[in-house]
Amino acid sequence: MTRTNWLCCAVLLSLCADGLALGAEPLPSWRDSPTKTALLKYVADVTTEGGAKYIPAAERVAVFDNDGTLWPENPMPFQLAFALDSLKRDLPENPAWRDDPQVQAALRGDFATLLGDHHRGLLHVIALTHFGVTTAEFDGRVGHWLETAQHPRWQRRYDQCVYQPMLEVLAHLRQHGFKTYIVSGGGADFMRVWSERVYGIPPEQVIGSYGKVTFELRDGQPVLVKQADQIFVDDKEGKPAAIHQFIGRRPVMCFGNSDGDKAMLEYTTIANPRPAFGLIVHHTDGEREYAYDRRPRSSGKLSEALDQAAQRGWVVADMKRDWERVFPERSAAQTAP
Amino acid sequence: MTRTNWLCCAVLLSLCADGLALGAEPLPSWRDSPTKTALLKYVADVTTEGGAKYIPAAERVAVFDNDGTLWPENPMPFQLAFALDSLKRDLPENPAWRDDPQVQAALRGDFATLLGDHHRGLLHVIALTHFGVTTAEFDGRVGHWLETAQHPRWQRRYDQCVYQPMLEVLAHLRQHGFKTYIVSGGGADFMRVWSERVYGIPPEQVIGSYGKVTFELRDGQPVLVKQADQIFVDDKEGKPAAIHQFIGRRPVMCFGNSDGDKAMLEYTTIANPRPAFGLIVHHTDGEREYAYDRRPRSSGKLSEALDQAAQRGWVVADMKRDWERVFPERSAAQTAP
Repeated sequence: MTRTNWLCCAVLLSLCADGLALGAEPLPSWRDSPTKTALLKYVADVTTEGGAKYIPAAERVAVFDNDGTLWPENPMPFQLAFALDSLKRDLPENPAWRDDPQVQAALRGDFATLLGDHHRGLLHVIALTHFGVTTAEFDGRVGHWLETAQHPRWQRRYDQCVYQPMLEVLAHLRQHGFKTYIVSGGGADFMRVWSERVYGIPPEQVIGSYGKVTFELRDGQPVLVKQADQIFVDDKEGKPAAIHQFIGRRPVMCFGNSDGDKAMLEYTTIANPRPAFGLIVHHTDGEREYAYDRRPRSSGKLSEALDQAAQRGWVVADMKRDWERVFPERSAAQTAP
Repeated sequence: MTRTNWLCCAVLLSLCADGLALGAEPLPSWRDSPTKTALLKYVADVTTEGGAKYIPAAERVAVFDNDGTLWPENPMPFQLAFALDSLKRDLPENPAWRDDPQVQAALRGDFATLLGDHHRGLLHVIALTHFGVTTAEFDGRVGHWLETAQHPRWQRRYDQCVYQPMLEVLAHLRQHGFKTYIVSGGGADFMRVWSERVYGIPPEQVIGSYGKVTFELRDGQPVLVKQADQIFVDDKEGKPAAIHQFIGRRPVMCFGNSDGDKAMLEYTTIANPRPAFGLIVHHTDGEREYAYDRRPRSSGKLSEALDQAAQRGWVVADMKRDWERVFPERSAAQTAP
């Protein structure tokens, strides 16, 4: 490619990008607030060529927690709803499960038992419903569940219960050359089935908890079988470790909602040679969503990270105050039957 | 962005891409041969919109082994040379190593001892030289080693001993919308230090062997410390498993050189719903590089994969016959002192 060609490309792309920015007001579901101003200003600052805070495109890495940050985690994390529905569906074919006290606890919704003894029951239920199948079979199960299950409160598909304001943040960042990643305690295989369609995040940018998979030729066809060992839990200090392992560079933006995200907020924002941005989604809206933060033993507990936010310069998004809308409009196609 | 803007971008980008293709003959270091023809034809077929074999850009994933495929693995894998040089350098500060029989074996070049008992000595030497440091310290060590060490035969920096024909394949694929990944038994942390500069492959597209890292705030600064446990070896059946874990979709092109790449060649090419392409770099040139394939107990052993190549449709690149040049020209800046 000649130098003139490169220049031609660069100039035209920059014109196109301007067209993009002029086309629509960014973040329409965010009310005018210090939160929205801080977000837009950061993105403008680090993408203005020649500016003091400019960050080259290759280093524009933004990481997002999923449960509680991009979609709700109530009344339980959605993947747990999938596991419980799977248990019920597969029970007739697995009569031995009827004598299994952890399965019994799950079926009667006894979360105290499931979460006791270091989440032993929960992990057991996940193991029964997530492992021993090929990755293709698992993808099919998750896809079928999404098509048929309904969130009990909003009576819509789980993958329609995503935060519209955060979809707009994802789009705004990508329009400005950021690479958007999920870094979640949820299972990577579970999220990858729908992350591209719902969030525009391709499978290679989904980092989550995972277990070992084994490769084999089965009847001459390559398959990967999900195993219930060597489980990596992508939470707390595991998140910066996974970011290193999968991305291999420090993010400059981090979005979370709980103490499980504190370590990756620290990794992103403390002493980063690049200007960095951290944001906490604070669940303050009991009417439109749920209001919670410091309640103990919940996957969305937010206490230490909230206490440190001011000192660390993390922006706290107040869902009730800052969000004009919580969920996307129901489209005709999306409306639950 | 308006529809007109999008069209403007698309048309202009396509003009630029044409300029690119017209600017230079692709793969100049490959001699005209069935190998080169097959490679170029596959890329043309799957990137011709409207063609029967067209593959959308998002699915154009190409995976490359590193040792023996993108650079040599003789007289020993380059990362082992790094480990041995590190041992020698750090010996004065670690007097206890002098009584360590595995260190002694390494220092006298006794590979039979290092490789015996399931590579126990080798893993021990790697552990001594790769772990217990922060990722930033490790990056610095690798960078310093590359600046100072010389390949004993070619008397040039190790990162200048890369295969020019394969650099051209990487560039040709990227120009045609492929995402190029390394999937190597080498350490991910070792390769990421130089993969972007040398191959144009960014850290997030480098998959390799890895160990656990732990996150901590040390004197208030976030650091990741490399640990010698939970080691994942990215070789043989581990390669398709790692591809699933890191990329989450099947590649359509796979390049390897040894039986360690057989499983990922199978995963890429057998019963893939997309047209797929597998290539084996066959080391046939003892004059310009090294000639070997079926020798036992080498990291580059090529036997089963070579036997299956015809049946599986894998293209075998004969280095002696197919490559006009093996290494890049020495530039003034690259010339060793």
